[in-house]
Amino acid sequence: MTTPPISRYPIPQLEDLPEDLRVRILEVQEKSGFIPNVFLALAHRPAEWRAFFAFHDALMEKESGLSKAEREMIVVATSNANGCQYCVVAHGAILRIRAKNPRVADQVAVNYRKAEITPRQRAMLDFAMKVATESHAIDDADFATLRAAGFSAEDIWDIGAVAAFFALSNRMANLTGMRPNDEFYLLGLLPKAG
Amino acid sequence: MTTPPISRYPIPQLEDLPEDLRVRILEVQEKSGFIPNVFLALAHRPAEWRAFFAFHDALMEKESGLSKAEREMIVVATSNANGCQYCVVAHGAILRIRAKNPRVADQVAVNYRKAEITPRQRAMLDFAMKVATESHAIDDADFATLRAAGFSAEDIWDIGAVAAFFALSNRMANLTGMRPNDEFYLLGLLPKAG
Amino acid sequence: MTTPPISRYPIPQLEDLPEDLRVRILEVQEKSGFIPNVFLALAHRPAEWRAFFAFHDALMEKESGLSKAEREMIVVATSNANGCQYCVVAHGAILRIRAKNPRVADQVAVNYRKAEITPRQRAMLDFAMKVATESHAIDDADFATLRAAGFSAEDIWDIGAVAAFFALSNRMANLTGMRPNDEFYLLGLLPKAG
Amino acid sequence: MTTPPISRYPIPQLEDLPEDLRVRILEVQEKSGFIPNVFLALAHRPAEWRAFFAFHDALMEKESGLSKAEREMIVVATSNANGCQYCVVAHGAILRIRAKNPRVADQVAVNYRKAEITPRQRAMLDFAMKVATESHAIDDADFATLRAAGFSAEDIWDIGAVAAFFALSNRMANLTGMRPNDEFYLLGLLPKAG
Amino acid sequence: MTTPPISRYPIPQLEDLPEDLRVRILEVQEKSGFIPNVFLALAHRPAEWRAFFAFHDALMEKESGLSKAEREMIVVATSNANGCQYCVVAHGAILRIRAKNPRVADQVAVNYRKAEITPRQRAMLDFAMKVATESHAIDDADFATLRAAGFSAEDIWDIGAVAAFFALSNRMANLTGMRPNDEFYLLGLLPKAG
Amino acid sequence: MTTPPISRYPIPQLEDLPEDLRVRILEVQEKSGFIPNVFLALAHRPAEWRAFFAFHDALMEKESGLSKAEREMIVVATSNANGCQYCVVAHGAILRIRAKNPRVADQVAVNYRKAEITPRQRAMLDFAMKVATESHAIDDADFATLRAAGFSAEDIWDIGAVAAFFALSNRMANLTGMRPNDEFYLLGLLPKAG
Repeated sequence: MTTPPISRYPIPQLEDLPEDLRVRILEVQEKSGFIPNVFLALAHRPAEWRAFFAFHDALMEKESGLSKAEREMIVVATSNANGCQYCVVAHGAILRIRAKNPRVADQVAVNYRKAEITPRQRAMLDFAMKVATESHAIDDADFATLRAAGFSAEDIWDIGAVAAFFALSNRMANLTGMRPNDEFYLLGLLPKAG
Repeated sequence: MTTPPISRYPIPQLEDLPEDLRVRILEVQEKSGFIPNVFLALAHRPAEWRAFFAFHDALMEKESGLSKAEREMIVVATSNANGCQYCVVAHGAILRIRAKNPRVADQVAVNYRKAEITPRQRAMLDFAMKVATESHAIDDADFATLRAAGFSAEDIWDIGAVAAFFALSNRMANLTGMRPNDEFYLLGLLPKAG
Repeated sequence: MTTPPISRYPIPQLEDLPEDLRVRILEVQEKSGFIPNVFLALAHRPAEWRAFFAFHDALMEKESGLSKAEREMIVVATSNANGCQYCVVAHGAILRIRAKNPRVADQVAVNYRKAEITPRQRAMLDFAMKVATESHAIDDADFATLRAAGFSAEDIWDIGAVAAFFALSNRMANLTGMRPNDEFYLLGLLPKAG
Repeated sequence: MTTPPISRYPIPQLEDLPEDLRVRILEVQEKSGFIPNVFLALAHRPAEWRAFFAFHDALMEKESGLSKAEREMIVVATSNANGCQYCVVAHGAILRIRAKNPRVADQVAVNYRKAEITPRQRAMLDFAMKVATESHAIDDADFATLRAAGFSAEDIWDIGAVAAFFALSNRMANLTGMRPNDEFYLLGLLPKAG
Repeated sequence: MTTPPISRYPIPQLEDLPEDLRVRILEVQEKSGFIPNVFLALAHRPAEWRAFFAFHDALMEKESGLSKAEREMIVVATSNANGCQYCVVAHGAILRIRAKNPRVADQVAVNYRKAEITPRQRAMLDFAMKVATESHAIDDADFATLRAAGFSAEDIWDIGAVAAFFALSNRMANLTGMRPNDEFYLLGLLPKAG
Repeated sequence: MTTPPISRYPIPQLEDLPEDLRVRILEVQEKSGFIPNVFLALAHRPAEWRAFFAFHDALMEKESGLSKAEREMIVVATSNANGCQYCVVAHGAILRIRAKNPRVADQVAVNYRKAEITPRQRAMLDFAMKVATESHAIDDADFATLRAAGFSAEDIWDIGAVAAFFALSNRMANLTGMRPNDEFYLLGLLPKAG
């Protein structure tokens, strides 16, 4: 086995990228210690890159009634349903870190019904999976169920929008054959050294 | 039957919107004669709105090896597979106009295999549907098939990215219960008055 | 693009048809202004043609607890589920005329859950789709639901039989590659000139 | 367990039926020794009954490039795919008799790929199942495959039309909860006494 | 048509088999009058054969809150869902004998919802089918439903384990192309001669 | 969140278990440093436990044309398709160890088409997934494909039997709600200390 490439498409050199992409990528590298491949693979198309990360940040970085760990749960569960290796591995790592739980990513990926999550999170993932796999059937009854589980209308938009955004993201990763960085596999599994 | 609302979520007043949203929306209204409801429904979240239309424009407005009509075919076929009423009706109208064919939108929506399209467009839609419904199974063989049908690697990205973007768009429309404007139903059906 | 043929099978000349077929076809032409292609494509087999239209008329032309528009809704919704281009286009036109609503056909075809229909019609279409896609699971509970929505036992037979008949019709259209007449695309979209 | 009724709907008395129905039903009884329940259950609606059996006879009784046993194979395979108990049991009996093989009905019902049939019959059933379960995907390539297996264009219509007619028939049986007659279970299993 | 072989793999001679296999097989032959092909086909791998029949006997021969007929109903319903010809035919015969009912096997195979079974057996088969086809979705609510239908926790294990064991068995039969013995087709259909 | 129990069913005390179960379990504990929960959860039924592990060992411990890592790949890929959290987590750990690759388990679980595996292993997993999800469609052509990929007839049995055995195992784990031991999540991720 040779290592598969990062993408089916060419990966631009950092120095050839538009300034705004390069700055953001170097910031991420600084913070994470490596450049997640999604930043490189999508940089093949700078305009799409900018819109992609703008959408990502608008959903994943903002204040929300959903914790950051909860938003990552949505990513991990729906990305496994879509067979997206990059997103399950990369966001599984982020979920482990955000939830401070080395087990929850694998649990949520394979079968969220049996994960170490709260009933509220279970209801969240039930709806996220419906958005991911049969959004045509979303109905007022789903909103009532989620309201009863304690979610505001804005929270429900957040659940749905995260699932919708990763419907796009998963397909781009599957289109390009995006490879998860080796670093992701270990992140969040070990207690941080004090 | 009363007319259903435009969205499950509140629709902001134009005057309450951030300047950039309002300017773009007024431009669209000027050009189209009405404001497509997607501009209003998503304006509930300006940051997401900006990313959404930036992504849209990066894919749908640029020069591409795919004609604008071809990109709309992808939208219409995959949106019907996702049960997205707004996208089929609105982009069906755009497809009729772009293709100068009053029949092709309904044909492509229901069963693109029998539409008045070229073999190349048939291959394009076969792949777009795979991206929409089973992107995990995309393989090098799909790329070979599309290359043999005359598509460049960049064209294939375009096909996949349009299908991926509307995977997001369809889910947002189904989440919000977005209603197509009445105007769309008739657009592109009649020959333009000379 | 050349125009595809009406059917994969030969289309008989009107003068070569048995008298009863020719009479009916000329009546339809007189009334509609054109001959819907289903009359021509199925005439390749006169005995099947007679049984087909006898069944059609027994369900679609008679008095029923379902209005004619409601019966057409069933046709349009289930035919899109079956990917039948001819039936969605042709019966979409009839639905627009019967319902005096230029929007309802596209709405019902793509996602009846969001169409401008009554709750009773929604229950009708829920059951019709079950008949179309998973009739093995029909149960007494379905009858109870429909009775509660105001349907008589005879109405329920009508819903089921229309969905069942178009399960046949859709498959014959897909088998023969039946092409919708150009006339259907515009019917019922414009207010009748006074 | 009490014996379930023949149908969810009332069964008319023979003496109350229109003359043509009663005559045909008595003929069948004379020939078979019993009245198959489909004749009674559908007699609730005489006009539909007439069209149903006219269609049935046009396909199942005529001369065809498909033997009568082959046409029954199509019925049995597709009816099990549709979960239609009446059709599998009743037509399984007819298939055993027509094929003079007490095993072939169960084999074809559960998995025709492993039945004691010829390669030509295997190709026939592959296509019949496509008509039954995904007719939207029928393509010219299917016709080429069947032509290569020795079927004429008329034979292909027969395969498709039988599968299409039982798509209707299965749904009517599932709608009415039609019960197979006890007699069917044993028919064709034992060698005829000389 | 020549008779297809018992298995895609070689069938060992009885005299070449390990003693324990030969003894058991001869016992079965003594009791049944023939050797069911599963005993021969799986004997290609004696260690797997031993585990397979040990598992089978642990579930199917022991005392249980489920009658032996009920356990065979589970086998027949789930095996048809898996398209396993051998298991439907062989266990259909056993079911007819155990239930002393010549109709129930075909009924349960094609559509258990319409079989001559009790409401308790219907609930049992609903759950068995869930284990067979979507076991990831099993939830505490399923246990509550079954408890309400009168099943103990041990009974529920039995239902699930029988469905699970035949998930294995069906796949081994489909892998090897296992052929049902001719004898099975007639067993249990006729009243025993006094 | 409290930790969920190991199983929906009672877990026997080691000292209450039959001698043979206790001996094996203590051996496993000795070797692994902990008792995998499957040994405890299934011990609720000693006869089934014995057959289960006899089957397991006959497939997973013997010499085979498939390496032990390859057999674990089959387990991991098919168990994710079945939504079996226990099997993906536990056998993912074993796969990482057997393959000496900390990434391959997650890759194979989510989308084996993109895993760091050989073309031969890809063909193996294509077939294993067919056994897991549509074994009724297994055909001679599948055997030809695998032979061409270098697998012997015995290797193909091994692929099929491992997929078949875990069809059982996954369903038992989903039935009992079996919880993966915490230890599994970290196994095989870090280079062994020298």
